[in-house]
Amino acid sequence: MTLTGQLLIGQRAVTGSRGEIRAFNPATGEALEPVYRGGGQAEVELACEVAWAAFDSYRETGLEDRAAFLETIASEIEGLGDDLIERAMAETGLPRGRLEGERGRTCGQLRLFAEVVRAGEWLDVRLDPALPERQPLPRVDLRQRHIALGPVAVFGASNFPLAFSVAGGDTASSLAAGCPVVVKAHSAHPGTSELVGRAVQQAVAKCGLPEGVFSLLFGAGREVGQALVSDPCIQAVGFTGSRAGGLALLATAQARPQPIPVYAEMSSINPVFLLPEALKARGGEIAEGFVASLNMGAGQFCTNPGLVIGIKGEALDAFAAAAGQAVKGSAAQTMLTPGIHAAYEQGVGQLAGSGKAREVARGQAGEGPHGCQAGLFSAPAGDFLADEALQAEVFGATSLVIECTDLAEMVAVAEQLEGQLTATLQLDDGDLAAARALLPALERKAGRILANGWPTGVEVCHAMVHGGPFPATSDARTTSVGSAAIQRFLRPVCYQNLPAGLLPEALKDGNPLGVTRLVDGERES
Amino acid sequence: MTLTGQLLIGQRAVTGSRGEIRAFNPATGEALEPVYRGGGQAEVELACEVAWAAFDSYRETGLEDRAAFLETIASEIEGLGDDLIERAMAETGLPRGRLEGERGRTCGQLRLFAEVVRAGEWLDVRLDPALPERQPLPRVDLRQRHIALGPVAVFGASNFPLAFSVAGGDTASSLAAGCPVVVKAHSAHPGTSELVGRAVQQAVAKCGLPEGVFSLLFGAGREVGQALVSDPCIQAVGFTGSRAGGLALLATAQARPQPIPVYAEMSSINPVFLLPEALKARGGEIAEGFVASLNMGAGQFCTNPGLVIGIKGEALDAFAAAAGQAVKGSAAQTMLTPGIHAAYEQGVGQLAGSGKAREVARGQAGEGPHGCQAGLFSAPAGDFLADEALQAEVFGATSLVIECTDLAEMVAVAEQLEGQLTATLQLDDGDLAAARALLPALERKAGRILANGWPTGVEVCHAMVHGGPFPATSDARTTSVGSAAIQRFLRPVCYQNLPAGLLPEALKDGNPLGVTRLVDGERES
Repeated sequence: MTLTGQLLIGQRAVTGSRGEIRAFNPATGEALEPVYRGGGQAEVELACEVAWAAFDSYRETGLEDRAAFLETIASEIEGLGDDLIERAMAETGLPRGRLEGERGRTCGQLRLFAEVVRAGEWLDVRLDPALPERQPLPRVDLRQRHIALGPVAVFGASNFPLAFSVAGGDTASSLAAGCPVVVKAHSAHPGTSELVGRAVQQAVAKCGLPEGVFSLLFGAGREVGQALVSDPCIQAVGFTGSRAGGLALLATAQARPQPIPVYAEMSSINPVFLLPEALKARGGEIAEGFVASLNMGAGQFCTNPGLVIGIKGEALDAFAAAAGQAVKGSAAQTMLTPGIHAAYEQGVGQLAGSGKAREVARGQAGEGPHGCQAGLFSAPAGDFLADEALQAEVFGATSLVIECTDLAEMVAVAEQLEGQLTATLQLDDGDLAAARALLPALERKAGRILANGWPTGVEVCHAMVHGGPFPATSDARTTSVGSAAIQRFLRPVCYQNLPAGLLPEALKDGNPLGVTRLVDGERES
Repeated sequence: MTLTGQLLIGQRAVTGSRGEIRAFNPATGEALEPVYRGGGQAEVELACEVAWAAFDSYRETGLEDRAAFLETIASEIEGLGDDLIERAMAETGLPRGRLEGERGRTCGQLRLFAEVVRAGEWLDVRLDPALPERQPLPRVDLRQRHIALGPVAVFGASNFPLAFSVAGGDTASSLAAGCPVVVKAHSAHPGTSELVGRAVQQAVAKCGLPEGVFSLLFGAGREVGQALVSDPCIQAVGFTGSRAGGLALLATAQARPQPIPVYAEMSSINPVFLLPEALKARGGEIAEGFVASLNMGAGQFCTNPGLVIGIKGEALDAFAAAAGQAVKGSAAQTMLTPGIHAAYEQGVGQLAGSGKAREVARGQAGEGPHGCQAGLFSAPAGDFLADEALQAEVFGATSLVIECTDLAEMVAVAEQLEGQLTATLQLDDGDLAAARALLPALERKAGRILANGWPTGVEVCHAMVHGGPFPATSDARTTSVGSAAIQRFLRPVCYQNLPAGLLPEALKDGNPLGVTRLVDGERES
C-alpha cells in the first residue's frame, strides 16, 4: 500500500492544511517519506460531524454486526502483511519480534471485544417488572440498558504504535461500546497510523457502516488534539501518554460548556517491594528478573518498574550489586523519539544531580543517536519520604532502589506514593505477615497488585486492571486494558412503561438477545 | 430525643466554632430551637481524619456485617418515631403524609442496599485462571474485585429532608460500597439532620464499627462544604441541589492536587412530549395528570415536569385550557425555604417578563409567607429554539408549554435540550412512528424515558436511572437512585498470582462468598 500522507475522514482521504509532520527512523535519524500535512479546525470539525452523523445508527447496530466489524478490522490489519511491520520498525526503532507480538495483541484485542460485544454483559440489562397490585402504590415497569456515550476522541500513544494507537485498546473498546472514533495519530509513527487507519476505513466500508464511524487526523503540536477535545460532538476522550499531555486534555474537557469524561493513562513508577525472606532466599534471581523487566522496550512501558523498595542490609546490598551488574551489562536500546530520549537523559540527570540518589550502575552507552543507557540508583527511604521529586517518573530504563530501616518505613513509603498502575510484591511464605501490612496501602494506591512477577506484560483479559488512582490515570474507576474497558464509554438509560414496539431489543420480553439480566435483583444468565 | 445543636464527629458530639444556623418553620416564619453552631476547618479535618482512620477496616467488613449495619440504621431511624416526623414537618412545611412516605422510602432504601451488599454483584468478581501451558506465553492468574473509593462527602438536599439527606441515597450507597461518610447537613433542616445523624451514630456503635464510619457537620455558607471537598481524605462527593452549588463543588474537586469524582445531581426541566394521537384522544386526562405532577411537593422535585411540548392546534389549545384551569385552581403550597421561594418568584418573573412566554394561568396566591403560586406559560417553539434562557429551570410548580408547527420542530426542540433526568412521552398506538423519531434524541438527552406516566415518583429499584447528561448531573455514567448507585463509589483492583493467603475472600477459590463471577468471560451465578 502506498502511503499518501493524508488525513482519513470517514471514507475520504483529505490533504491537511496545516504544518508538516515527518517521521524519522530513531535508530538512524533518517527522514521517512511521505510528508504528512496536519489538520486544522475545519478538518477536525468535519471528522466530528461525520462521527456525530454516524452515532445514532452505529450505536444501534446488532451485536453480531458490531462484533463482525471488529473482527474485520483485525483481518484487515493482518492483511497489511509485512508492510505494516517494516514501516513500524522504521518509525519506532522497535525490533521485529516485538512489533509482530504487538500486532498479535492488537488483533487479539479486537477479537476479544468482538466476543465481549456478543456476550452482551456490557448492556447491564436490568428489569424490574411492574407490580400493579403493590400497596400502597403500584410499581411501574422499569428496564435499564447501557448505551454508547457518543463519538470518542482517541489519542495514539508513541510507545505502543499498534496496541495503544490507531486501532488499539481505546479504539477497540469505544467501537465495541457503539461509539464512533476520531483518532489523533501520534506524530512519531504517522505511516504506521495511516496503514492501520486505512485498514479500519476498509473494514467500515466492507461492513456497510456509516463512514463517520472512524476518522484519523494528523497534527503537529497540540492544536488538533485541543480542537478535538473541545468539539461539541465529542463525548469522551481516551489518552495514553505523559502527565502534562493528559492534564492538558483534562483541563480542556472540564472547561467545555458540557464537560466530558477523560480516560488518561499518564504516569506510574510501579513500585516493587522486596520482602525480607524472598530477598534473602533468592535476591540474585529477583535481580535478574527485575533488570529484564526494566530493560524491556528500553523501559518505555507504562508499567516499567521504576522503584524498588527493600529493607537495608546484606541481602539488599547483594540484590543491588547483582542488579547493578546486570544493568552495567545492558546494551543501549534505541528510544522511540529524540524527544523521549532527551526527556530520559534529563530525568536521569536530575536524579543523579539530586544529591540524594546514589548511582549504583549505568548501562552501556549507545552508538546510535537515541540509545537508552540504563541506570540504577539508590536512596535512603528518609530522603525519598522528604523529597517528592524522587517520585517523578523517568520514562525509560532507569530505576531507584529505596533502602528502608524496617517494615514500618516500607509501609510509610507505600503510604507516601502517588497513585500507580501496579504495585509488586516479591515474597516467600515467611513474608505473608509483611505483605498483609502493605496490602491495604497498595490497594488504595494501585490498580493491579502482583506477587512474584513483574509489572511489564499486561494480559488482555477480563480480570485485568490497567488503571489506578491519580496520577496513574485521570479516572481510577476504570481500566484501559481488558474487556472491562468497554464500560468507560457507556451510560445507563432507564425505560419506564414503554410499549413493546418502542423497547430496544435488549430489553424486550423473552430476552431475544439472550444476554444475562438482573431481574428484580436476581441474576439470570 | 433532645436536640443539642452539635456536630457529630464519629461518636462525639462537638459544639461548632463558627456562625449560627437556625431553622425556621417556612409556613409560619417561626424560629426553631436549638441554635446550631457551624463547624470550621478544624472540625472538618477531624471528621475527615476519623473517616480515613475507619476506611481500611470498614471497607473490609464482611457482607453480612455491612448489610446488618444498614438495616440497623433503618431501625434506628424508625425508632425515632414521631419526633422525626414532627421536626421535619416544622422545618420543611411538608405535610405529614409526604414525610411518613419519605421515611418509608429512606428506610426501604437502606434495606435494599443491605440486600445489594449481600448479593455481592457490586464486587464484579472476575477470574481469569492461569494457563501455564499457553503458547507463546503462559497466562498468569488474574482476579479482579471492586473496592471502596474512600471516605465520601455527602451534601444533604433541602427538598428531600430524609431520602436525599443525612441517611439518604448517597449515604446509603456510599456505606454499602464500604466508604465512610461525612455529611454536610442542609441548613434548612438541621434538627431533622441531627435526629437522623444520631440514629446513624447509634447504629455505628451498636454494630461495633470504627467511629469514623459516619460524621455529620453543620455549616452556614459554603466554607464547610468547600473545606470538605478539598480535604485530602475525601475521595468522592455526592450532592443534590442547584446547578451553581454543584458546579462550585465540581470546580473545587477538580482543582485538588488529586482530583476526585463528583456526583452532582443539579438541574433538569424534564420535558413531556404530547404526541398527536394521545393529545387528541385524551388531552383533558393528560392535563389533569400533568398538573398533579407539577404541583407535587410545590414543584420542588428534581423531576418536576417543567416543559411540555406539543404540536399547535385545537388539541393543544384544549390541553392548555384544561391545564390552565387546573393550575388556576391550585392552592398555594408552602415552599421549603425563603431562599427557594425568592428564587422561584424571580424565575417566574423572568419567564413572564421575557417577552416570549405568554402566561396561560397562575394558581392561587398563598396566605402564608412562602406559598408557591403555580404557573403555566406558553411559547412558540421558534422562540424556545432561539432563546436559551427559556430552558432555565424554575424550581417550583411552574411549567412552559412549547407549541411546535410539526413533528420535525418537536424533534428540533428535543435536540436543542440540555441533558435531563427524564423525558416523557404521552402517546397512543398511532403515535409510535412519532415516538420513534424522538427516541434517539431522548436517549442522548435523558437518563430515564417514560411513556404515559409522569416523571415525579422515582422508584428505588435495580433498573432505575436517576441521572442523565450534563447539566442534569455532573456524571451521566451513573444513577443516584437505585441499587446501581453503589457503583459510583467503587473502583476495580486486579490481583496477579497472589498466594491464597493474601487473596480477599471474594476472590478465593471455591467462591466462599457465593457471589456471581465472570470466569474466563463466562457468567457463573
